[in-house]
Amino acid sequence: MKSAYGLRIPESDPELTRVGPGTPCGELMRRYWQPVCLSAELTDLPKRVLVLGEELIAFRDGQGKAGLLYFRCSHRGASLEYGKVEARGLRCCYHGWLYDIEGNVLEMPLEPPNNPFLKQVQHPCYPVREFAGLLFAYMGPPEKIPEFPIYDVWRKEGGMLKARMGPRVGGPVDCNWLQAEENLMDALHTFWLHTRHSKPQFPSQAYGIDPHELKYEETEMGMRFVLTRKLPSGKWWELVWEMLMPLNVHLVYTDEPKTERVHAVTYCVPVDDTHQLGASIRWLPEEGRDQLSGREQLAPAGRGDVSYEYTQRYPDDKEAVEGQGRIALHGLEHLVTSDRGVIMFRRILREAIQAAGAGADPKGIIRDPAKAALVRTGAGSVVRDG
Amino acid sequence: MKSAYGLRIPESDPELTRVGPGTPCGELMRRYWQPVCLSAELTDLPKRVLVLGEELIAFRDGQGKAGLLYFRCSHRGASLEYGKVEARGLRCCYHGWLYDIEGNVLEMPLEPPNNPFLKQVQHPCYPVREFAGLLFAYMGPPEKIPEFPIYDVWRKEGGMLKARMGPRVGGPVDCNWLQAEENLMDALHTFWLHTRHSKPQFPSQAYGIDPHELKYEETEMGMRFVLTRKLPSGKWWELVWEMLMPLNVHLVYTDEPKTERVHAVTYCVPVDDTHQLGASIRWLPEEGRDQLSGREQLAPAGRGDVSYEYTQRYPDDKEAVEGQGRIALHGLEHLVTSDRGVIMFRRILREAIQAAGAGADPKGIIRDPAKAALVRTGAGSVVRDG
Amino acid sequence: MKSAYGLRIPESDPELTRVGPGTPCGELMRRYWQPVCLSAELTDLPKRVLVLGEELIAFRDGQGKAGLLYFRCSHRGASLEYGKVEARGLRCCYHGWLYDIEGNVLEMPLEPPNNPFLKQVQHPCYPVREFAGLLFAYMGPPEKIPEFPIYDVWRKEGGMLKARMGPRVGGPVDCNWLQAEENLMDALHTFWLHTRHSKPQFPSQAYGIDPHELKYEETEMGMRFVLTRKLPSGKWWELVWEMLMPLNVHLVYTDEPKTERVHAVTYCVPVDDTHQLGASIRWLPEEGRDQLSGREQLAPAGRGDVSYEYTQRYPDDKEAVEGQGRIALHGLEHLVTSDRGVIMFRRILREAIQAAGAGADPKGIIRDPAKAALVRTGAGSVVRDG
Repeated sequence: MKSAYGLRIPESDPELTRVGPGTPCGELMRRYWQPVCLSAELTDLPKRVLVLGEELIAFRDGQGKAGLLYFRCSHRGASLEYGKVEARGLRCCYHGWLYDIEGNVLEMPLEPPNNPFLKQVQHPCYPVREFAGLLFAYMGPPEKIPEFPIYDVWRKEGGMLKARMGPRVGGPVDCNWLQAEENLMDALHTFWLHTRHSKPQFPSQAYGIDPHELKYEETEMGMRFVLTRKLPSGKWWELVWEMLMPLNVHLVYTDEPKTERVHAVTYCVPVDDTHQLGASIRWLPEEGRDQLSGREQLAPAGRGDVSYEYTQRYPDDKEAVEGQGRIALHGLEHLVTSDRGVIMFRRILREAIQAAGAGADPKGIIRDPAKAALVRTGAGSVVRDG
Repeated sequence: MKSAYGLRIPESDPELTRVGPGTPCGELMRRYWQPVCLSAELTDLPKRVLVLGEELIAFRDGQGKAGLLYFRCSHRGASLEYGKVEARGLRCCYHGWLYDIEGNVLEMPLEPPNNPFLKQVQHPCYPVREFAGLLFAYMGPPEKIPEFPIYDVWRKEGGMLKARMGPRVGGPVDCNWLQAEENLMDALHTFWLHTRHSKPQFPSQAYGIDPHELKYEETEMGMRFVLTRKLPSGKWWELVWEMLMPLNVHLVYTDEPKTERVHAVTYCVPVDDTHQLGASIRWLPEEGRDQLSGREQLAPAGRGDVSYEYTQRYPDDKEAVEGQGRIALHGLEHLVTSDRGVIMFRRILREAIQAAGAGADPKGIIRDPAKAALVRTGAGSVVRDG
Repeated sequence: MKSAYGLRIPESDPELTRVGPGTPCGELMRRYWQPVCLSAELTDLPKRVLVLGEELIAFRDGQGKAGLLYFRCSHRGASLEYGKVEARGLRCCYHGWLYDIEGNVLEMPLEPPNNPFLKQVQHPCYPVREFAGLLFAYMGPPEKIPEFPIYDVWRKEGGMLKARMGPRVGGPVDCNWLQAEENLMDALHTFWLHTRHSKPQFPSQAYGIDPHELKYEETEMGMRFVLTRKLPSGKWWELVWEMLMPLNVHLVYTDEPKTERVHAVTYCVPVDDTHQLGASIRWLPEEGRDQLSGREQLAPAGRGDVSYEYTQRYPDDKEAVEGQGRIALHGLEHLVTSDRGVIMFRRILREAIQAAGAGADPKGIIRDPAKAALVRTGAGSVVRDG
């Protein structure tokens, strides 16, 4: 018996986990376009968001253009969440300063005419880009702004794109972002946690068969894994999940063995060091045909109503991953062969952090507009004869 | 566009904002009489209060005299809020030590006769003064205790004085005291926040007309502003608000244009660095005639019940001022001409802090008993022909 | 009047109060067997506990043997509270590692056959011992493990032993453990707080008569006090309370004057520096005869429902002791003759801390198995003729 007496509890890894301004990983994340809220949340009221530990106010002006401002008014610091959305911008409630989406001050209504301050004040803000119902921001050094990547999975005849943002299905919220991303690059936990341990939380057609082979591969844009299984029919089924840096982009998943590309991109949204959300854009064949996936049907729907006993009996990603603590302690882990994906992901992440720190473009940054307009991806599944 | 990337977030100003023992502004505040609770709260139970970051127990003994004791019993530290109010003082629940209002220990009932400890222990406490339904304390160096100021606005034929204490109407609670005081010395926000931005929160007769002239003036006792407006009748209306150091004393305000002195004094009660309350003593013409002012009628009454959306649409002082953060960051402000009052107030405050720090009497301290018994004030309004 | 102005607020005593790993008092406490939960809480679900500031998972395997593991899985750190209790041990939900009660890893089901990691990983855990319905753990240095003490008060013909764990009757929860223990070695507060101050909270037959004599005595195993009172019948009644180090063991108390030994041992369970619970094992004459003591009948039953006003009028140990603060400040106390028990207890505790710190066996450690199997105690009461 190894006594827990004298167990040294190490610190969490600050390089890989922290997302605030000036932190190594935070600086990496600021090199990519990040989802901040849904386009539908830009109404006649400003929307307060917290992303990468920064408090910001998103809004859409009367000309339909979106902006993302530092939350404190440049005048006396009142929060712009109480501002008024107007034709030309967002107006602070306190003394009426009016900002456009680029942080220019258009009016200071309580000041005398020929006000010299109008030209002197520039409000801090970030460039934004809307796509398919999500508002993205670039929160990094202005001179490093990359192209906005549009993925091939969305380019399909007919149908429509639909955005979501919020807690991931069955997923963690109140912990560091890295734990959730590692969980996605850990193919095998699905075969234990979601299948054998808890009631099936993934479709059993797809996950009731143990993998024959599992390969993790680094790619130009990130990494992927290929799961190969032999179906009862004697055919072979290959499933490919892919992680594309901007490190919060993943391409997932199918409910049953068939040959198809995936149609969705899901993003990790690091709220701050100990909170996160998910966002996704998925192609749907037609309006209203937003059927729940097998995962969504099988995971307990109203997680807020689930008792502690229920979570103890049927834990999901939320329990497994939040149970690692607000920020996991890598120094206490014992990584084994089934952790190859986690090990590879951390190495790729660390190399990207170091590249960004050195002023280079980290993995996954695209500077060629043509390439960014149709980013090639490889996730999906194939059923073949063998 | 000025990027928010790399924005340096400064510290708050510790000299002007902190109120705890030994802080520069806290030491200044301890030179004046401070309201701590209502007289009506001194019942047969002790009253726990938190003022200037200090936990204290107020009570009234059987002879009608009020006391204010440090909250921990000098014996074993039990909180005196669980003590019993008795004829001669307050008795701790734990071992029965009985304190009078001056902190003398009258009894230690579990000790043997001829107990030598009785004379040795002196419990820490503060001098208090009741006036018109408020209990005031002097929490500063004993040798610096000033006269208790009684304002001329309360000296009126007939009627009565009535005290209140609690959150200010529509006002901030969960933030540093300074933000609320600056808000009172910022005459023009009323014409934006309370009039144009939100539904009218002040009487529109009084605040629907933009000022013709606004003057801020330092006075012997503090500062004041004079708002001059031209009425539709062609007459001129001057409104004067005054701030009298003890820096939490203000004289406000009228609902409609007429010539009258104000009849109320309102105090700021700094609870701790990030919380505050208001207190007031007002003259009323007769018992029961405590009519709501226009401000009280127009501000949302039950602020606890107001939704976040409501506060976004109709923000009040509470949103504007609490929205500056728990303690505002002056280093991010851009002060302009309409902030003259705030600038003047901060200068006066800083000079008073420095005077107190140097051992001198800060602005507003009165040592002449005759002067203190009828402090002249100047707030009110005048309608004149031009 | 001694002004509270300038009152220096000292730090709490870190040597006597802190219970975490590596703290002086925490190291002392880790030399004794500590109660961690009820045996009845070891069901088909693991039980998360917090003891001495350490998060641990208790469980009982299919062979009926109890274990106590560090809460983070040695693999990837998932909390074992979501694990599955199985025949051979506890299995983590995330990747299925199976631990036995000694921290051996029996299975890593996602690893290949002939897995070399199985032998390499040892999970941190503590030795446990069940007795009479309580699970005890030894959380100290393995080479210092003492005998498990079994007290003579439980050795009685017939009847049964019954365990409880939770908040003590009328007692403190949200404060440092030391305050509650001092309260137990402070005989006289009963005659004030529980009798004169609040409505009687102890049986008035037993506590309505003031003591004639009170003696505190250090003993081989700890300390005790002897309260002598003259009954109305002219007889004399001696009541003995005893504290036996492991410093959280006490032997209490009788409801009425009679000659009898006590039948219960109560333990203090330091949860962390600012929280605590109680535990007890008591002998009952027969199943179902678990009558409430006078203390239990007289203390307010549902303390959660009691209003603040009620606690102000009728404070109990909870108010007096939690009212000393999360951790009491000894530097502000004025100890007097009635505090002899508290003074003696602190001295004994400090000597034990220093002994343990020097590597010696602190007071109350038993190394002789025969002695531990029947620890002699002296608490109880005697009625005699004089």
